[in-house]
Amino acid sequence: MSTMPRFGAGIWHFATYVDRYATEGYGDPVGFTEQIDLAGSVGDLSVVDLNWPFPGFDGSLDDVRAALARNGLEAVAITPEIYNKAFVRGSITNPDPGVRRHALEVLHEATGVARDLGCDYVKLWFGQDGWDYPFQVDYSRLWSQALDGLGELCGAHPDMRFVIEYKPREPRVKIVFPSAARTLLGIERIGLPNLGVLLDFGHSLYGQETPADAAQLCIDHGRLFAIDVNDNMRGWDDDMVVGSVHLVETLEFFHTLRRNGWEGVWQLDQFPFREDSVEAARAGVRAMKAIHRALDTLDEEALAEAQSRHDALAAQRLVQRALLTAMAGDL
Amino acid sequence: MSTMPRFGAGIWHFATYVDRYATEGYGDPVGFTEQIDLAGSVGDLSVVDLNWPFPGFDGSLDDVRAALARNGLEAVAITPEIYNKAFVRGSITNPDPGVRRHALEVLHEATGVARDLGCDYVKLWFGQDGWDYPFQVDYSRLWSQALDGLGELCGAHPDMRFVIEYKPREPRVKIVFPSAARTLLGIERIGLPNLGVLLDFGHSLYGQETPADAAQLCIDHGRLFAIDVNDNMRGWDDDMVVGSVHLVETLEFFHTLRRNGWEGVWQLDQFPFREDSVEAARAGVRAMKAIHRALDTLDEEALAEAQSRHDALAAQRLVQRALLTAMAGDL
Amino acid sequence: MSTMPRFGAGIWHFATYVDRYATEGYGDPVGFTEQIDLAGSVGDLSVVDLNWPFPGFDGSLDDVRAALARNGLEAVAITPEIYNKAFVRGSITNPDPGVRRHALEVLHEATGVARDLGCDYVKLWFGQDGWDYPFQVDYSRLWSQALDGLGELCGAHPDMRFVIEYKPREPRVKIVFPSAARTLLGIERIGLPNLGVLLDFGHSLYGQETPADAAQLCIDHGRLFAIDVNDNMRGWDDDMVVGSVHLVETLEFFHTLRRNGWEGVWQLDQFPFREDSVEAARAGVRAMKAIHRALDTLDEEALAEAQSRHDALAAQRLVQRALLTAMAGDL
Amino acid sequence: MSTMPRFGAGIWHFATYVDRYATEGYGDPVGFTEQIDLAGSVGDLSVVDLNWPFPGFDGSLDDVRAALARNGLEAVAITPEIYNKAFVRGSITNPDPGVRRHALEVLHEATGVARDLGCDYVKLWFGQDGWDYPFQVDYSRLWSQALDGLGELCGAHPDMRFVIEYKPREPRVKIVFPSAARTLLGIERIGLPNLGVLLDFGHSLYGQETPADAAQLCIDHGRLFAIDVNDNMRGWDDDMVVGSVHLVETLEFFHTLRRNGWEGVWQLDQFPFREDSVEAARAGVRAMKAIHRALDTLDEEALAEAQSRHDALAAQRLVQRALLTAMAGDL
Repeated sequence: MSTMPRFGAGIWHFATYVDRYATEGYGDPVGFTEQIDLAGSVGDLSVVDLNWPFPGFDGSLDDVRAALARNGLEAVAITPEIYNKAFVRGSITNPDPGVRRHALEVLHEATGVARDLGCDYVKLWFGQDGWDYPFQVDYSRLWSQALDGLGELCGAHPDMRFVIEYKPREPRVKIVFPSAARTLLGIERIGLPNLGVLLDFGHSLYGQETPADAAQLCIDHGRLFAIDVNDNMRGWDDDMVVGSVHLVETLEFFHTLRRNGWEGVWQLDQFPFREDSVEAARAGVRAMKAIHRALDTLDEEALAEAQSRHDALAAQRLVQRALLTAMAGDL
Repeated sequence: MSTMPRFGAGIWHFATYVDRYATEGYGDPVGFTEQIDLAGSVGDLSVVDLNWPFPGFDGSLDDVRAALARNGLEAVAITPEIYNKAFVRGSITNPDPGVRRHALEVLHEATGVARDLGCDYVKLWFGQDGWDYPFQVDYSRLWSQALDGLGELCGAHPDMRFVIEYKPREPRVKIVFPSAARTLLGIERIGLPNLGVLLDFGHSLYGQETPADAAQLCIDHGRLFAIDVNDNMRGWDDDMVVGSVHLVETLEFFHTLRRNGWEGVWQLDQFPFREDSVEAARAGVRAMKAIHRALDTLDEEALAEAQSRHDALAAQRLVQRALLTAMAGDL
Repeated sequence: MSTMPRFGAGIWHFATYVDRYATEGYGDPVGFTEQIDLAGSVGDLSVVDLNWPFPGFDGSLDDVRAALARNGLEAVAITPEIYNKAFVRGSITNPDPGVRRHALEVLHEATGVARDLGCDYVKLWFGQDGWDYPFQVDYSRLWSQALDGLGELCGAHPDMRFVIEYKPREPRVKIVFPSAARTLLGIERIGLPNLGVLLDFGHSLYGQETPADAAQLCIDHGRLFAIDVNDNMRGWDDDMVVGSVHLVETLEFFHTLRRNGWEGVWQLDQFPFREDSVEAARAGVRAMKAIHRALDTLDEEALAEAQSRHDALAAQRLVQRALLTAMAGDL
Repeated sequence: MSTMPRFGAGIWHFATYVDRYATEGYGDPVGFTEQIDLAGSVGDLSVVDLNWPFPGFDGSLDDVRAALARNGLEAVAITPEIYNKAFVRGSITNPDPGVRRHALEVLHEATGVARDLGCDYVKLWFGQDGWDYPFQVDYSRLWSQALDGLGELCGAHPDMRFVIEYKPREPRVKIVFPSAARTLLGIERIGLPNLGVLLDFGHSLYGQETPADAAQLCIDHGRLFAIDVNDNMRGWDDDMVVGSVHLVETLEFFHTLRRNGWEGVWQLDQFPFREDSVEAARAGVRAMKAIHRALDTLDEEALAEAQSRHDALAAQRLVQRALLTAMAGDL
């Protein structure tokens, strides 16, 4: 059996949430270091991705290091909060040049924190950069601003890697980096080696991509720096537990990673609004472990042969055999 | 020219919002009576629909009455907050019988407030009643609980009208009353005269109904008690300004109301996350007024003739003529 | 282990197809009795649903009986072709009263054939009854025409059962019976005991229902007369092989049938455009058999307990255990 | 008032259609030169895009030239039928190398016909190149085959322009060129100057792009060679009449073309399944003319100022004023 990958999670997995209706929250607030302790209690996580500024936290970076250390965790990434109150009309594409500068300051500072924590990358999620209404923006200018801002940021920190986590929509009705191909097109234009893609399986799925195909495209361009996984109903970013709905396509996604020798972290981006967060993480990891075992038993030669004929029925049979046999053992 | 209808708005139109990302809000908080003052400043609104418990408000009912009075507004409805923290796993279908009882208490109390304020109806929106995952609930039991709870509530207050505002999803992945037909089926089963439908145009649109057809169905069952309008991109409840995207279908919706002699309030349910709320309300009212004028000029006889032949091209031409002529005058 | 259900298929599963692009077809034409022979060669099918008039067939009913007999098949249903050339603008809701009469004649005649063949039901699929454009039809009249036509048909044949196969769209942009709830609402209004629902899993899935919930609703109304299964990507009626994408929800659908003691045929409605039709049917039956075995092993008591708490994580774990264990054995 | 653009249509607009249900057709067949005559009778069309091999036509190229000439039409493009019976499992990405070669032969020959007719471009629509099921194909290989085939074709004909008409799906569940960005990524990789994009407004709309943004992106890459317009309900390629549903976004699309000085043909790709094809074309042209007039009156300076602030409400008001005033005049 091949070696298990490293598992990770966005630290927000262990927070509680608000939305526009449940403004008082889906549960009592969980402090930032308490979130880290919950991540540690999952038992299979090696790394976490941390929001920054650390939400509701007024301690020092050493406090964070200590919390990580006592839980055997490392910070794989920093996710700068360029989508909260100051940036609801955009960060590096905000119509106000003062806000654009502020966004870059936050991003530079976040990069410093990522460096201090030894992170692998800074994650850029432009959830508020985009538009809502027809005729609201000049698309050419908005796109240029996005590329210019990214060029400035990534050019200033050649020692750090940056990833764009693309997403079709939410909270903006339309987000400036909505798909793998659009993001790659932007990255190629910027032309810097330290900017890549974080592919969120769920974003790809509800964005009507085939996630495995999107992953392959990013890999073929040498830009798949990181991934997140979760599940949804194909219409929205539901951030459900991995494998709870689209098991076959989740397997296909990880199969593509393995086929290409991709060796990054298998990372959770679930939002367990109404579930116990530790149990939800364990369920996600359990699904990923089963998928990993399934990939060990999948008859790759026979699959390649079926694919060479585009034989969907033969391919499905091989896949179901591997998947179902492997998963059953752990349940 | 026919008399203009009364215009209204949900009071939350004039609040600011949070969501799961912008947890610090899309703007500074706006107090409850300040929201009423903003509604008053729109200039064309006659009524408002009020959340209850009044959000963040510790004054008296008389304070609310005074705020309404000084703005020339009446409370058309109370919307009980059966979707906030205590009820994120359901209100009258919560798995915990204690929470179900609590939900009914809130609903009874809200009905009292509605009575005190002389409201036309109590609005029931079951955004947290439903499910997220396959196999999570027993559908038959959940449906029965919903109907039982409604029967108990409406049966206890024969002097008050209640409306169910159906919605396909959000915040739940699936909501127990997702469509006009499903809601009518439940209402017929309950069999009480004081329970009807609030049809939100946007919910109908992104729920893949034809809103005009859904309105007709509710009218034919004698259950269209109220309506809300807004717009979206057909994939989510974007709550955009009326007419900003789907002008033709919005016109068709109001045309159906007029054709049937329906005479309720034309009410806004917009969420101007990043816009000035008063200007957004004015834009919505302006669109509704233009639509009202268009209906005055629409050649109903010719339209009926075209419809008797299912002649889409002839019908469209008549409609565009009326719509575009009428709107241009006000712009 | 419980007794296997009877398996069936729409006979069109074994035809070849055209669409608006591949007007010359996805393969060479397959004669009607040849389709029956292919159905017979699958090896697990007991019944078939037959289009009528039998497509491209000029033999006698006895020829059809003979073809069925030599393959050990029975005709479970007749599907009248009220969606082909004569009816592309509607059958019982056609704007032309002559076409409406013609549609009823075809339906009466089809009922006679169904009676002669000893069918269980006549299947009514109103794919061309609906609308495409805003303002094209008078919704109230169209709905009345549909109910009137159905009342006339079903009232004239109290000895035969009829089912409406609802579908959100295709080929019409909007179909008059788009959902389970809308269909039940119409059936209740007609008020005849011999009119029920055929629930097509795929239609329900891409119609944004939860198929298991829709099945439960139909059962609770005593109207679930028949079912069809297939799979899709939730955006269109792809009619893919059962279980190829949404295995968990397919299992949940059949679980609901079993929990209610529903004992009809488990029937395929797949369109293998580019696949071998016999192999595609075998793959679908193999998936259904595995699901049936999974239901034998599912811990119903524990599931009911998890559902009583709306505990999605516990329910999922039970389900995955049963599903994956059972399927692995057959692959 | 600025000069009107040239209007065009796909010649299939004037054919009749079949689909998988109405296998006998939505009307009686219309011969190929009769289609040209119908196009001529619209009165405002200057050019047509011709399927090739000419469907059901056994005359000579001179016969086609004569039919075009007598109707005052030119052939703007040839659309090779690489999606019919021989190619239902793919053209240049078919698993069978013999079929891939055949596809290229057809494409080379079609290019010759386009040259003979003086066309502006050859239109490549890869509707059958893609996949249906998870695990069916090796995405990297399929993508390479597509790019290799295109490189061979376009490299062999440096005097002719080629366009890829991207589309998310149909008839394939997933098509190899599904979006503007993905198509541009492929074109950039191929690196030939004579390969561009045909942007179909409807494909972009139901593919969840913002069509105006997609057009801008193609223009910024120097690759917007041609456009098609129609309308739909955002869930499928309904190919409805231009402006019948999404008037504002159609205006925005053409506004982007004008703002960039783009001067190609404004071309219809409507499928009037149940409508008179000539009347449907006239309705589409009427909508485009009204949009053209609206663009003449739109206050570009004020719009640019509103867009510089991302002011959706101000922008909408300007746009509605121009659109509605202009359209009303012609109705």
